[in-house]
Amino acid sequence: MMQSQASGASNAFVLEAWSVSRLDQVERALQHWVAADASPQSAGHAAPAALVEAMRYAVLDGGKRLRPLLVLAAHEAVQVEPGVGCEAALRAACAVELIHAYSLVHDDMPCMDNDVLRRGKPTVHVRFGEATALLAGDALQALAFELLTPQDDSVAGLTQARLCGLLARAAGSAGMAGGQAIDLASVGHALSESQLREMHQLKTGALLQGSVVMGAQCGDPDAQALTALLDYGSAVGLAFQVVDDILDVTADSSTLGKTAGKDADNNKPTYVSLMGLERSKAYAQALLIQSQQALQRSGLANTQALAALADMVVNRAH
Amino acid sequence: MMQSQASGASNAFVLEAWSVSRLDQVERALQHWVAADASPQSAGHAAPAALVEAMRYAVLDGGKRLRPLLVLAAHEAVQVEPGVGCEAALRAACAVELIHAYSLVHDDMPCMDNDVLRRGKPTVHVRFGEATALLAGDALQALAFELLTPQDDSVAGLTQARLCGLLARAAGSAGMAGGQAIDLASVGHALSESQLREMHQLKTGALLQGSVVMGAQCGDPDAQALTALLDYGSAVGLAFQVVDDILDVTADSSTLGKTAGKDADNNKPTYVSLMGLERSKAYAQALLIQSQQALQRSGLANTQALAALADMVVNRAH
Repeated sequence: MMQSQASGASNAFVLEAWSVSRLDQVERALQHWVAADASPQSAGHAAPAALVEAMRYAVLDGGKRLRPLLVLAAHEAVQVEPGVGCEAALRAACAVELIHAYSLVHDDMPCMDNDVLRRGKPTVHVRFGEATALLAGDALQALAFELLTPQDDSVAGLTQARLCGLLARAAGSAGMAGGQAIDLASVGHALSESQLREMHQLKTGALLQGSVVMGAQCGDPDAQALTALLDYGSAVGLAFQVVDDILDVTADSSTLGKTAGKDADNNKPTYVSLMGLERSKAYAQALLIQSQQALQRSGLANTQALAALADMVVNRAH
Repeated sequence: MMQSQASGASNAFVLEAWSVSRLDQVERALQHWVAADASPQSAGHAAPAALVEAMRYAVLDGGKRLRPLLVLAAHEAVQVEPGVGCEAALRAACAVELIHAYSLVHDDMPCMDNDVLRRGKPTVHVRFGEATALLAGDALQALAFELLTPQDDSVAGLTQARLCGLLARAAGSAGMAGGQAIDLASVGHALSESQLREMHQLKTGALLQGSVVMGAQCGDPDAQALTALLDYGSAVGLAFQVVDDILDVTADSSTLGKTAGKDADNNKPTYVSLMGLERSKAYAQALLIQSQQALQRSGLANTQALAALADMVVNRAH
């Protein structure tokens, strides 16, 4: 703990200043793009207001925005010329957040986790009804791919295609949705550590790692950098879940902004239930060190934001 | 009716022979692509078997496959050289069917239409449970975009990007999901004919028209052809829904493969409730004529399949 707190302190100023400016961009972009008239079809149809209201409720004014920050940090790490790929990276940053937001909306529904509180607010189905929550989640997933495919020339066609492919694979049956299905099937069952890791690599790891790789693909990384960033994303993705499991038992609901102790109550397998609290904390710190070593292997100079984000993931209080 | 039945008869042989060969391609492609190991991630994760089983159940062995046939027919209409764009068109054909299939899975769920019968089989949530149905729908949407972005060179990057953009807009809040939200809000309310048309243009029209345009974009259509195909797709999309409403009151459940009379029972506004049965039938025939006129305006030679599909949509018995 001492070591990583020290490393956290040395990065603290950098990360805070950097995050504030990047989050400002992301929030304004989401405000603009999650709107009834943001992407009119050729036929000129607008999205219905009630659906858009639920989509905005699910996305705006909430969340740590970790995935968008990973996209932007990874893009900046590989960026050679200022400005190149920035529009693509901002769109990718918003797209991964839309996928994350849709997954929370669906995950909170009565047939899944049946959660009523999220980010300190009533969940989408509590506020808007189940049917609208279902459709809002569906529409958010589609909107993510809309954002990646602007109809002007602001993002190169090949980049659009790559980003769509990465996002689809991170979100789908061999990624996030697949991990949720394993999670669902695992309630009340004993899992080995490797099974638990596999579940989380899909459920949360795939989109976190995907965020890093999508950010990198907005630039033109060499093979060494890309491999190292994949390793970084894998370590951070796993660490995120280990820390989530730790916080589920150590933090209270008001700090978390969601119902604490939920996983333990639901008899869901977690790192804490499997390896105990202290070993889980040590594992999170080991993953932090792995992520920093991956950045050193990348050969990239500008990795401070990625390093600081990994530190934040492991040493966060909520 | 006499006129269109005659036109149906003159197209019957062409459409049947053509459909059999195209459906064979589509079914084999779906069998291959909706599978646990069809698109392994770089990290080598496979989709969990239970989720894939539900996805396959939702997609395989059922449905008229109208949207895939529209994709392939539109591609053939604009195709200049044999073979060019065929891989893209087959992927697009499967992708639109996956979006359609996911929408049915979610639409059938208890919080939406609460339907227990679909294509003569128990609906996905009845067979696999609500949570798995929700996730299977989510994963099918992601898989549609995976299919459009193969990681080899089989589809040009710019084509991948265009197809993803068209599909996202057809499926999203200003397309299919938006139309479903309007549908949801309209139960028990009186709608004008223009409001009903707007709802259906989003709910079913956007993806049907999107199928036509995606097929065309696998080739290289000129502006005149593309505009005419948009008009064709619009007329066919609207006709499809008018005929659906007619069949909901004139056909029985075993012919439809789903619960007949459902919309009327649910007090949903339909063309039949708004304009009566006979006027609805006349409207469907008028839309068929509009679609054929659009094909004549396209300047394309090879539009027989598109013409026959429009006829089939209007004159089908289920």
